Amino acid sequence: MVSEDMEARAKGPLRGLYVGRYQPFHKGHLHAVKHILGRVDQLLIVVGSAQYSHTRRNPFSAGERISMIYEALDAAGVDRARYSVFPVPDIHAHSLWVRHLVSYLPRFELVYANEPLVKRLFEEDGKCRIEAIPFLERDRFSATEIRQRMLDNEDWADLVPDRVADYIREIDGVSRVKELAETDTRA
Amino acid sequence: MVSEDMEARAKGPLRGLYVGRYQPFHKGHLHAVKHILGRVDQLLIVVGSAQYSHTRRNPFSAGERISMIYEALDAAGVDRARYSVFPVPDIHAHSLWVRHLVSYLPRFELVYANEPLVKRLFEEDGKCRIEAIPFLERDRFSATEIRQRMLDNEDWADLVPDRVADYIREIDGVSRVKELAETDTRA
Amino acid sequence: MVSEDMEARAKGPLRGLYVGRYQPFHKGHLHAVKHILGRVDQLLIVVGSAQYSHTRRNPFSAGERISMIYEALDAAGVDRARYSVFPVPDIHAHSLWVRHLVSYLPRFELVYANEPLVKRLFEEDGKCRIEAIPFLERDRFSATEIRQRMLDNEDWADLVPDRVADYIREIDGVSRVKELAETDTRA
Amino acid sequence: MVSEDMEARAKGPLRGLYVGRYQPFHKGHLHAVKHILGRVDQLLIVVGSAQYSHTRRNPFSAGERISMIYEALDAAGVDRARYSVFPVPDIHAHSLWVRHLVSYLPRFELVYANEPLVKRLFEEDGKCRIEAIPFLERDRFSATEIRQRMLDNEDWADLVPDRVADYIREIDGVSRVKELAETDTRA
Amino acid sequence: MVSEDMEARAKGPLRGLYVGRYQPFHKGHLHAVKHILGRVDQLLIVVGSAQYSHTRRNPFSAGERISMIYEALDAAGVDRARYSVFPVPDIHAHSLWVRHLVSYLPRFELVYANEPLVKRLFEEDGKCRIEAIPFLERDRFSATEIRQRMLDNEDWADLVPDRVADYIREIDGVSRVKELAETDTRA
Amino acid sequence: MVSEDMEARAKGPLRGLYVGRYQPFHKGHLHAVKHILGRVDQLLIVVGSAQYSHTRRNPFSAGERISMIYEALDAAGVDRARYSVFPVPDIHAHSLWVRHLVSYLPRFELVYANEPLVKRLFEEDGKCRIEAIPFLERDRFSATEIRQRMLDNEDWADLVPDRVADYIREIDGVSRVKELAETDTRA
Repeated sequence: MVSEDMEARAKGPLRGLYVGRYQPFHKGHLHAVKHILGRVDQLLIVVGSAQYSHTRRNPFSAGERISMIYEALDAAGVDRARYSVFPVPDIHAHSLWVRHLVSYLPRFELVYANEPLVKRLFEEDGKCRIEAIPFLERDRFSATEIRQRMLDNEDWADLVPDRVADYIREIDGVSRVKELAETDTRA
Repeated sequence: MVSEDMEARAKGPLRGLYVGRYQPFHKGHLHAVKHILGRVDQLLIVVGSAQYSHTRRNPFSAGERISMIYEALDAAGVDRARYSVFPVPDIHAHSLWVRHLVSYLPRFELVYANEPLVKRLFEEDGKCRIEAIPFLERDRFSATEIRQRMLDNEDWADLVPDRVADYIREIDGVSRVKELAETDTRA
Repeated sequence: MVSEDMEARAKGPLRGLYVGRYQPFHKGHLHAVKHILGRVDQLLIVVGSAQYSHTRRNPFSAGERISMIYEALDAAGVDRARYSVFPVPDIHAHSLWVRHLVSYLPRFELVYANEPLVKRLFEEDGKCRIEAIPFLERDRFSATEIRQRMLDNEDWADLVPDRVADYIREIDGVSRVKELAETDTRA
Repeated sequence: MVSEDMEARAKGPLRGLYVGRYQPFHKGHLHAVKHILGRVDQLLIVVGSAQYSHTRRNPFSAGERISMIYEALDAAGVDRARYSVFPVPDIHAHSLWVRHLVSYLPRFELVYANEPLVKRLFEEDGKCRIEAIPFLERDRFSATEIRQRMLDNEDWADLVPDRVADYIREIDGVSRVKELAETDTRA
Repeated sequence: MVSEDMEARAKGPLRGLYVGRYQPFHKGHLHAVKHILGRVDQLLIVVGSAQYSHTRRNPFSAGERISMIYEALDAAGVDRARYSVFPVPDIHAHSLWVRHLVSYLPRFELVYANEPLVKRLFEEDGKCRIEAIPFLERDRFSATEIRQRMLDNEDWADLVPDRVADYIREIDGVSRVKELAETDTRA
Repeated sequence: MVSEDMEARAKGPLRGLYVGRYQPFHKGHLHAVKHILGRVDQLLIVVGSAQYSHTRRNPFSAGERISMIYEALDAAGVDRARYSVFPVPDIHAHSLWVRHLVSYLPRFELVYANEPLVKRLFEEDGKCRIEAIPFLERDRFSATEIRQRMLDNEDWADLVPDRVADYIREIDGVSRVKELAETDTRA
């Protein structure tokens, strides 16, 4: 596998893939992005479930999540030329999902994933190397935890980069999360 | 409208949108990108009909088209930090298409479009300013013309940037276009 | 079959179904509606292909088409209590289409149709009586003909009820039809 | 906003929108319809989630729900010319939902809604005035409560208009609700 | 109804339908298949929810489930000429589901079903005879129970035919079921 | 590749795939099936575009096409245990189509195809061996030709197996093809 990577590098930059829903983008995600950028030439950040917004699990639209990522990485001094952000809709047929990603994105060699399903789907596909991401206090830096804190009127802002917190306030995101929780929604 | 743009600029960079299918990305597209980059701070390039590939009108996958754009703009010395490329699937409900784009993408203020349908949909939506793109010999630099030349074994390579021609050869694109033409396909 | 109709009448009003795309609603449609209202208690007008708009074959949205029908029937003095208008999206599985209609609509006993596919699908389903509609100069009062006249800058307004012509002008419909024709669209 | 309403009125009737799933249509819905009809010229009743039936949350088809509404409003002496009922399928992209409604329906100026998600989506769209509906004993007159009573063999019939109760019995609706509850269903 | 069956038999073999998801195919399913084959000439086994795989409720792909059925019935000495296996995707509109099956499959006269929803949908359609299947220790021979035992590291293999157990081990199915349980998945 | 086939054979029967739409199943298809059965242990016949029926290009439902195949192969004395027929819906994303087939079907090693698109998609996937099918007078034994003859009231019956001709007459298929041609249909 290593030699294939070398061959890929010879042809162009080594590209890593990082898939998430980023509801919202938090400090754990930022930590992971920095970690991966130390290991690849270019990073493809996939904003998954891109077709959803205004649901309990997906309160923010793909466009809003992309804006959060730009805000956070700009503030962290990450050069835009080092990464690209791609909205990718779900296809609801998991056995096709890896090929769906491959079809949507430029070539990539490395996949950074901790989620068991993502890892298994790439393993069964068998064409990419998969690497784990060192977590930053996983229980705390969790999007589910952040949305719960918003609902409970607890402090959530220190779990996300400052510019993401500003952005969420600007779009009145906390009210949106609360209102969605009062409604009987799917997805 | 101008004052609104000023206000937007105060909040962040002025962003322009450029929508196409890029089947394939040719010198006319490159000319347009350079023109727009002279007028906005950042450019959002939307690769439309992203879910299609291997059809007569859409022989190249979204990922392949994104690769063509990167190749062409890298070779042209365009800084990656100045633009982003976004694959966006069609939704087959034109009256929702502008809102679909807005939901998928970061905020933008200006739309660069010549296609009458794209212009009308943004005009009826009424929230963005639309500007025309000066064409570079439209009949010659046309993706339809290029695909036809591929079918007719005529010279097509000088209509696309050199690195795009290389990329198309690398993925055996001309054979693909020819084989698709022999098959009874939809879309 | 007649006795079943009688039985239905005993249970409630006799309801007739009239399916069309109404792109746009013209004098032939108005003639058909009046004819059917002379034979049933209530008329269900189905606006088919409801999910489409801004395409060559479907330039007007479902909402715009419903507005045309209201305008035309109000002006013709048809009591709103005698008919209902229902937008129904296509499902692209013709063998299920009749059951899809049945599921979307209140009970109906009679189907008014001239289009061969609509007649065959209801015949194969075998649960409704189908009756033909006497045409009003079919070649002239045709939506395809009207859209073609709009493209050719010929007189189209006398083929539609006056209030529909007003409505189309109000929404700038002729420009829309022309702009769509210049664009490479599907559906 | 008031002056815009006035302008709208000048052009035609003031139209209000009322969105629900009506699983089933109950006395609280009837109360709301009467309230709204005291404030607008015409009422557009949207039967949402129109594509679903025979599921736990959506036991009744769109057609059955429309029948319930007709039965209830006829019995209540509401003139059919004052309101229209429209089946509208979900689109599973909440950020597009308001524009989807606008595309499916004739023009409307006022939205009657209590559900937080519906209110927020219309607020973010920013083009309609939203008004609250005074509830009639919300905990009792609730479709969820009615379906639960059906499952528990408790009295449900006094929560719906008499003619709706008759209709539900006629289509053997209580057995359907019970059988669906025994089955592992989605949606 | 009997005389219609006789008429059908005169025209060709009596065909029975058996619908399941088979996640995985277990000894209860095998028992049912043998029972039905004693009563019909040919059996159509429908593998439902065919589009899903790698989800908690649907860990195995349609192809894998078909393979399990072939393995189990070959080992049980059932002649392949007596039955056919058909993958059928869900359509998420229950009122159309029976017609969807009819459209996908060769003619059938008898439906074997215990699930209340399946029975009701065929009853409301009114065109097939429905028969119950005698269960083999329903609580034990249950796919839900088997998947739970896999999660709990308990013995599951004696609940499925031996060749199915071998097949599940061959595709590393237990690990897949466990990894899916650790992931936040839908469907 | 040969050695892999050998390995596959060691594990189980050698399986070949044959994909078509079979609108209708004709003598050329029968010829191909017999040819392939001389080379593999088992044949998987995929009825593609399974979701369509009652369109010009797809007049017959998947179920009807499966019935034609059974009729033709029974009459030709082909043992049912040697082949299986699978309805597979299109997914409209060609780059995922091969993986979609793999997910829907039991394992197969060989693909029999003449159509350029099918061959290219399997070649780009790179996991199966592809073999050509010797044609039986391709211009004559063509489903398009047969449907055209039906429209032109010319003799079509000698192009299909006798039992298929009987079946088409039984379902009144020629009238259906003619009526569809008079209607403005898509797909």
